[in-house]
Amino acid sequence: MGKIKSFVYVFILVTATLVSCKKEITIKSEVQSAQTNPLPSWNDGPVKTAIMDFVAKVSTEGSPDYVAPEDRIATFDNDGTLWCEKPLVQELFVFYLVKKEAEKKPELKEKQPYKAILENDTAYLKTLHQEDLVKLVVSTHTGMSAEAFATEAATFFANAKTPSGMPVAKIVYQPQLELLEYLRNNGFKTYICSGGTTDFIRAISQQYYGIPPEQVIGTQFKSEYADTTGVNDVMRLPGLASFNDKQEKPVNIWQHIGKRPILACGNEGGGGDIYMLRFSQGGNKPSLQLIINHDDEAREAYYQEKDNKSLNWAAKYKWQVISIKNDWKTVYPSK
Amino acid sequence: MGKIKSFVYVFILVTATLVSCKKEITIKSEVQSAQTNPLPSWNDGPVKTAIMDFVAKVSTEGSPDYVAPEDRIATFDNDGTLWCEKPLVQELFVFYLVKKEAEKKPELKEKQPYKAILENDTAYLKTLHQEDLVKLVVSTHTGMSAEAFATEAATFFANAKTPSGMPVAKIVYQPQLELLEYLRNNGFKTYICSGGTTDFIRAISQQYYGIPPEQVIGTQFKSEYADTTGVNDVMRLPGLASFNDKQEKPVNIWQHIGKRPILACGNEGGGGDIYMLRFSQGGNKPSLQLIINHDDEAREAYYQEKDNKSLNWAAKYKWQVISIKNDWKTVYPSK
Repeated sequence: MGKIKSFVYVFILVTATLVSCKKEITIKSEVQSAQTNPLPSWNDGPVKTAIMDFVAKVSTEGSPDYVAPEDRIATFDNDGTLWCEKPLVQELFVFYLVKKEAEKKPELKEKQPYKAILENDTAYLKTLHQEDLVKLVVSTHTGMSAEAFATEAATFFANAKTPSGMPVAKIVYQPQLELLEYLRNNGFKTYICSGGTTDFIRAISQQYYGIPPEQVIGTQFKSEYADTTGVNDVMRLPGLASFNDKQEKPVNIWQHIGKRPILACGNEGGGGDIYMLRFSQGGNKPSLQLIINHDDEAREAYYQEKDNKSLNWAAKYKWQVISIKNDWKTVYPSK
Repeated sequence: MGKIKSFVYVFILVTATLVSCKKEITIKSEVQSAQTNPLPSWNDGPVKTAIMDFVAKVSTEGSPDYVAPEDRIATFDNDGTLWCEKPLVQELFVFYLVKKEAEKKPELKEKQPYKAILENDTAYLKTLHQEDLVKLVVSTHTGMSAEAFATEAATFFANAKTPSGMPVAKIVYQPQLELLEYLRNNGFKTYICSGGTTDFIRAISQQYYGIPPEQVIGTQFKSEYADTTGVNDVMRLPGLASFNDKQEKPVNIWQHIGKRPILACGNEGGGGDIYMLRFSQGGNKPSLQLIINHDDEAREAYYQEKDNKSLNWAAKYKWQVISIKNDWKTVYPSK
């Protein structure tokens, strides 16, 4: 018993020490792992070097390029930047909502574009323009309370799969998850700045990316507050308040954060991120711009802009171009 | 020399130990002081008890009312809630900007309401309606870049005084500074949700209240992104995007945070905070509502709503009414 007692005392002592040091130990081990191999899914090369050099210089006290932690703001686009956008997950969600709606209102089954969605008429669906999709997003995402929408989104994500059967949770880019964590371990605050709708992304931002809902900036709907029998919530109205794309991204970043990002990351494909990247270059602090080139048909997707605007601006303004083919060792999480 | 050397070594050792423990020591001492006397400027009474009981139950693991730290969101109005609103600081800023403008454009000196402002014609100024003030805010706060405005605001705050000669930094409410810190020490994330304009409050939110710019939700102007010769910034356009008052507060809280606050604090006077407080009651978590009653003519100001709406709602919905006269031991910081 004496031995056991001594053991218990020692155990309590050691535990107490460990508990009191836990925070520091956690921080140290993260920094250590980050220092040994912070970006294991990235191939060595100029882009990885540029990222690591930038993070080192802005986070090293005494460095002439040091940036205080509160100003280490990083903004990331989502579709095609943090997860694969072929197909667009928000489009899958729209189709999911249309199917649910058609169960309640069978008359929709004979009306386009609902008919095409319900019958998976891909030929017809390909003829839809961006405006048609936006209209569908507005009609399916509004006319309900904020909480009702949150439930819809959570239910969708619980079982969401791409048409090829891949769980949506698996189409995030592994190298980007590492980059987000590496930045946070070095004092950055990471934000999503997406053309996708805010509350849709908020449903998974913490779980998928470690980014809390309040750090998601996206497309917003008009809304009004309602406090009536059985309802005390923000109601989503059928109209866009802000389409968070192109020049709207810098505007909404400023409205939301009130600081200029020192690191901005987007992707070529629709030219939606170039103004956010330019905005991040306009301050008086060092900054880094990253733009993903979808050049890997075998492992992800191959698509280029007709006018090549994003990559032309990358060359003109000295942004780092991330080649999925060459810079990423793996694309998706292994588990 | 030997002694000095030893002293230097010991000094280095002690300093190194202190630096490595600094974070922990700071945390411990805050928690300790928070535990012994977290709200020294509050008188004992039902309001202080309600606040401390609420904070204890939502932050104690195992409590049936436990709320995870990421959901401990607290939103505070600013004018009349965190600092005195008699006079309105934003009005002082408008007058400051008008005076600067008149130096550049002398013709304004003969035009109303500029003439009244420049001549301190208080009789005329009292006839101005809220819409007139909003118009003046819009005209003086826009037509410039985000950075140019930030410079204007910082310059104003560097020397800002109330008409009675009190530095603006001294009209914050000491009990509220303690409450904000107490909440943060217990895992809350504190936000400002004000009818004042966002970027104006952001100029001092960290310094005055320990609240970073990205946690300020306020009135916003229409804006557009400009990237032309010599300008790479968000431009402030002469129009309101959102007047963050009354029913707009819940809407903007949701747009910004995507979570419902579990603690909301406002003040009676203009009925601007009652919808924010109601919104915080509509979730499935425990919540606390606080509303300040300006009932202390001697130490602050006495003003009541004509229809008494805020205090009527407080009674109806069981909010805690903070009587400045009875609940606050001191009103302003002593140093």
